[in-house]
Amino acid sequence: MVVINSIKEMRQIAAAYKSTGGKIAVVPTMGFLHQGHLSLINKAKEEADFVITSLFVNPRQFAPNEDYDKYPRNMGSDSELAAAAGSDCLFNPNALEMYAIGNTTKVAVEGITAKFEGAKRPGHFDGVATVVAKLFNATLPDIAVFGQKDYQQILVVKRLIEDLNYDIELIVAPTLRQADGLAMSSRNKYLSDTDRQSSSLLFLALEDARKAIAAGMMQRKVINAVMHKRLRQAASIKIDYACAALANSLHEPDIFLPGDDIVLLIAAYLGKTRLIDNALTTIPKGKSPLAAL
Amino acid sequence: MVVINSIKEMRQIAAAYKSTGGKIAVVPTMGFLHQGHLSLINKAKEEADFVITSLFVNPRQFAPNEDYDKYPRNMGSDSELAAAAGSDCLFNPNALEMYAIGNTTKVAVEGITAKFEGAKRPGHFDGVATVVAKLFNATLPDIAVFGQKDYQQILVVKRLIEDLNYDIELIVAPTLRQADGLAMSSRNKYLSDTDRQSSSLLFLALEDARKAIAAGMMQRKVINAVMHKRLRQAASIKIDYACAALANSLHEPDIFLPGDDIVLLIAAYLGKTRLIDNALTTIPKGKSPLAAL
Repeated sequence: MVVINSIKEMRQIAAAYKSTGGKIAVVPTMGFLHQGHLSLINKAKEEADFVITSLFVNPRQFAPNEDYDKYPRNMGSDSELAAAAGSDCLFNPNALEMYAIGNTTKVAVEGITAKFEGAKRPGHFDGVATVVAKLFNATLPDIAVFGQKDYQQILVVKRLIEDLNYDIELIVAPTLRQADGLAMSSRNKYLSDTDRQSSSLLFLALEDARKAIAAGMMQRKVINAVMHKRLRQAASIKIDYACAALANSLHEPDIFLPGDDIVLLIAAYLGKTRLIDNALTTIPKGKSPLAAL
Repeated sequence: MVVINSIKEMRQIAAAYKSTGGKIAVVPTMGFLHQGHLSLINKAKEEADFVITSLFVNPRQFAPNEDYDKYPRNMGSDSELAAAAGSDCLFNPNALEMYAIGNTTKVAVEGITAKFEGAKRPGHFDGVATVVAKLFNATLPDIAVFGQKDYQQILVVKRLIEDLNYDIELIVAPTLRQADGLAMSSRNKYLSDTDRQSSSLLFLALEDARKAIAAGMMQRKVINAVMHKRLRQAASIKIDYACAALANSLHEPDIFLPGDDIVLLIAAYLGKTRLIDNALTTIPKGKSPLAAL
């Protein structure tokens, strides 16, 4: 596996590879790779000939009060893990090259970024959209693989690709979980033992809501209450949000309709660690919305 | 010359051409082509193998009170002129495809867009940066040719290319002028006969300032006053701005220093028609800035 630090060199390698007719996939990560990331690399390798894993802790997607400085990093192990998972290239650009002095260009996806993570983390999605555009232009991918865990990010990248005319196929890979349901995340390492135990409540809350929906629940606030109830089982959890919304638009009607695709979104603090998780489901057909009233 | 309307088809043709190893140049225009545009196409043809001229009156770069609806269009003559000038492809996308319902992504170059055209035309440069990113992603150019007439736009595109990691060489072609100095522009057709006569004052004001600088003038406000004086020779001129600034940053120090590269920027209304023009010059070396005081 070749390791590239320079943007220019990355573009040259990608362009040279592309001219052979091979398919390039990029897997954008912030490093500190875990099984979840490796499953993205595996998926990329299935779909493309040349897999570029990017490692870049992007300062622009952290708010000033967030954990940019202490975000976990481990280049040595990342390099070994990425190679073992099938990555052909590790792109590890320098922050000073990515955001050279005078860099003032921002990519912003508006609308769907106004709520949930966008509301709680001002500037976060501008940072994401900007770095993703930069990574696309540096790696020239045919395919980009992102994890479902950052659900709203998926919607942002989807819009970015479509709105800016990128010829890139977006592949969304499922969230990998620990045995008790906790979604894999680089931030899980921050959790104390007690908080680690409570952390499975996010997954259990999503499961509760999914079951309630399957059983006929369609009122948004009632579905949200189901998630809140489960999350409150741990006194140490501070809920940022636990909401059901339409999966494509993130709109929040009072009552969902049969056939609606729904995303259940949770963000919560356990101690100082902020975790997010989500699940997709569908309001069953053949039930009347009136039955929910 | 092939005419393409679909973004997807444009990308396919560009990618296919690129895979042959040929160089692509794009010349982004809003159509209603004049000699100035044709000189950009000529330049592109000198530098690249496959020249794509884009014709797109971009709604996003017009403010609500501006002339989007009445901006001149003439697809038939544009097509003939572009072909005769050496364009291999005319990319004429549909506004409904360029900005499909739900398109909410914006590219913004901050900093240098805060003044001059950016201040006078709110949103203008966001529209420019967004459409240029879209055109780059649709046409995959190695080279982009822009005219110097839209000087601040050149700075925006330069930043966009660098900040978002595009591998594109920006070529700036000189402004073409009528015999009396008026810069060629699609908007000149709006001018009444009287205003057409007065319109050469923009060029004459730039010339006055350039000569004053060559003779040793270094105080910014005095240089600006030289331009204002000439422009005020026509009572019908409404000056939007007539300013000297540092050419790279658009900063406006009180006194320029020997060796400073300067841009002289003018925007003015003649009747309802807004014209812009600019000139580049350099503060002569070997003179003391104290001499200017």
